Amino acid sequence: MGLVVQKYGGSSVADAEGIKRVAKRIVEAKKKGNQVVAVVSAMGDTTDELIDLAEQVSPIPAGRELDMLLTAGERISMALLAMAIKNLGQEAQSFTGSQAGVITDSVHNKARIIDVTPGRIRTSVDEGNIAIVAGFQGVSQDSKDITTLGRGGSDTTAVALAAALDADVCEIYTDVDGVFTADPRVVKKARKIDWISFEDMLELAASGSKVLLHRCVEYARRYNIPIHVRSSFSGLPGTWVSNEPQGDQQVEHAIISGVAHDVSEAKVTVVGVPDKPGEAASIFRAIADAEINIDMVVQNVSAASTGLTDISFTLPKTDGKKATAALEKIKPSVGYASLRYDDQVAKISLVGAGMKTNPGVTAQFFEALSDAGVNIELISTSEIRISVVTRADDVKEAVQAVHSSFGLDSDSEEAVVYGGTGR
Amino acid sequence: MGLVVQKYGGSSVADAEGIKRVAKRIVEAKKKGNQVVAVVSAMGDTTDELIDLAEQVSPIPAGRELDMLLTAGERISMALLAMAIKNLGQEAQSFTGSQAGVITDSVHNKARIIDVTPGRIRTSVDEGNIAIVAGFQGVSQDSKDITTLGRGGSDTTAVALAAALDADVCEIYTDVDGVFTADPRVVKKARKIDWISFEDMLELAASGSKVLLHRCVEYARRYNIPIHVRSSFSGLPGTWVSNEPQGDQQVEHAIISGVAHDVSEAKVTVVGVPDKPGEAASIFRAIADAEINIDMVVQNVSAASTGLTDISFTLPKTDGKKATAALEKIKPSVGYASLRYDDQVAKISLVGAGMKTNPGVTAQFFEALSDAGVNIELISTSEIRISVVTRADDVKEAVQAVHSSFGLDSDSEEAVVYGGTGR
Repeated sequence: MGLVVQKYGGSSVADAEGIKRVAKRIVEAKKKGNQVVAVVSAMGDTTDELIDLAEQVSPIPAGRELDMLLTAGERISMALLAMAIKNLGQEAQSFTGSQAGVITDSVHNKARIIDVTPGRIRTSVDEGNIAIVAGFQGVSQDSKDITTLGRGGSDTTAVALAAALDADVCEIYTDVDGVFTADPRVVKKARKIDWISFEDMLELAASGSKVLLHRCVEYARRYNIPIHVRSSFSGLPGTWVSNEPQGDQQVEHAIISGVAHDVSEAKVTVVGVPDKPGEAASIFRAIADAEINIDMVVQNVSAASTGLTDISFTLPKTDGKKATAALEKIKPSVGYASLRYDDQVAKISLVGAGMKTNPGVTAQFFEALSDAGVNIELISTSEIRISVVTRADDVKEAVQAVHSSFGLDSDSEEAVVYGGTGR
Repeated sequence: MGLVVQKYGGSSVADAEGIKRVAKRIVEAKKKGNQVVAVVSAMGDTTDELIDLAEQVSPIPAGRELDMLLTAGERISMALLAMAIKNLGQEAQSFTGSQAGVITDSVHNKARIIDVTPGRIRTSVDEGNIAIVAGFQGVSQDSKDITTLGRGGSDTTAVALAAALDADVCEIYTDVDGVFTADPRVVKKARKIDWISFEDMLELAASGSKVLLHRCVEYARRYNIPIHVRSSFSGLPGTWVSNEPQGDQQVEHAIISGVAHDVSEAKVTVVGVPDKPGEAASIFRAIADAEINIDMVVQNVSAASTGLTDISFTLPKTDGKKATAALEKIKPSVGYASLRYDDQVAKISLVGAGMKTNPGVTAQFFEALSDAGVNIELISTSEIRISVVTRADDVKEAVQAVHSSFGLDSDSEEAVVYGGTGR
């Protein structure tokens, strides 16, 4: 018994039937003796439809007004969900992000939560209500304007509320059965993970796993809120993300947690950079000034004969044009030879805390790729992750080969994907 | 130049094109040097669609949650309107009812405004913005819950804001060119009224005219805010409603302002009521306890021979069943003979301050009806209004006959109805 925060994505509440199904699930949790707070996204395609409308009246909709518009989406789903719950005989109240005390900075369309003051939610659940809270939205501290949190915002709302309410668990309901050892759409024999540490989950999220976003896991780790990722369709136990496994949570694969891949990045190589102090700094200052987040960075030793080196990095494809433009601008001052831009690449990452104490992991990873005929273009490692960049065409073979090599394949094809993805 | 509050109904902002047309009109008002606050309803059928959704998840949606749901409608239209205005190069900010300081009581689905604290709106317009405000909604003083104002609520929002901001005028944009001497759908030669007093407008609204609701006119009279009712489609000057005509506002028909009709009421007759003190009181106490608002009440002298009298009254057809049930219940104690319920009636009213000093008006009214072969069933009068109840089938002939008799017909058929009606 305790306080449970649940989050339901847009695909779980896509229509009246979905809302009624979610209402039943929430009422079940309440009937088990829990206090329940449910965070909900906008119904199915509502957000896209509202963005379409916005573009019909204005080619570049203003940020403040776009946030005002989009937050209508959760308002509709949360009110309907509260009605559906009341129809099942339980008391329920819906709250906007602002009413729930989700305080953010003033960056419209991708605001960050800076505080949560859940007084009204606490009162509501203490009075016996199920509290339904709009995900994805808040109110800015300075201007009291309505803000939205950007991609994956509803998950962050749920974890932040769970932290502020000192909840026992934050349940993230989605359209898959949990976190898998690889993307089930790529690896049919991917296995559902019963338990994974915050650290490994953070690396998976940073490496392209889309079930939970990095920001949400980071928040949960900071406040030590266990996350339970599970399906709103099947109702099966899913994946626990926490500091330590609890009770009967299985920890089968101690060395490796999973294989992630990411085809959303491009590779930039700056060729023939003079190998002297300050040159690399100029390059990355130019990228930073263009407000581009880069991912992997690789520089090899320079050829002794020329005194020149090559610097490669990866970045979101969507920032590709901006990056090359920024680099062309500094070409005269840096004096590099040429620029290569390649968006036909994939990043494949192996994640697991166990690799710290198992020196053979790196070798086994490269052997598996080699056996599958996959060429490695870049390598980057952290304590608990190895990432390589390969050709985009090779991604499926590469992930499957690595998954098998580390004994992650399940005996059957168990993974099921039920619907789309929410926000 | 000064401060103008404008209100646009749902039919004016039914789609992206409508929103862009309204945006242009607002920008024109701003460019004339005015500060502009625009109150907007939900787009076209949005409210009906949301109610449909609510009924799919719950047969009787909870009031608090229904308000939360429906207020998403104005949120969408106001954000889109602000974007469209910014796209025309003017600064605009949208505000919810709560942000605009519309404070109401806690009666969900038909809340009353009890205060308006428009600090944020004042600041916004003083900074040079056009302020867009959600109509129809507010926030309850006690519980801080979102409320809606019920039918015609956006008009009331506009007038209340105009009063709180001490605006020069409240412009109500709608789908007709103004207030007419009769319903243009019934009387083709109905004439647009250039100016009408608050008092006459109140009587017209109470008698079935649907252009402005009683509550909104009452509010405007109390705070002496001139209303300008006009079309958002044609852009022509419409009807001014105020204490005194201004400048070149025409006051052609001093005696009679217009003819209104209402087919939404039913007539109840309690037959054979003992003519002694307290009997009528018992009857109307029973009706009041059932929370039914009655309109006309007529009791004639009792027949000396029997000591019994008949009491008739009219009430909304929608309350008919509730009323007869309440009266059946007190039949034993009151001892009346029988009950008659008739929903095939119409009320026809002649309104005009001039009738106070023109004793022939009543006679002319009855003669006109008689010449048209229309039988009168009930009569009720106020200082500036005469109402009769007739058969519903006679309503068209009756209204046309009275309209002609008092010289209200225009030379041409000028009235145009452009769309549906908003809320």
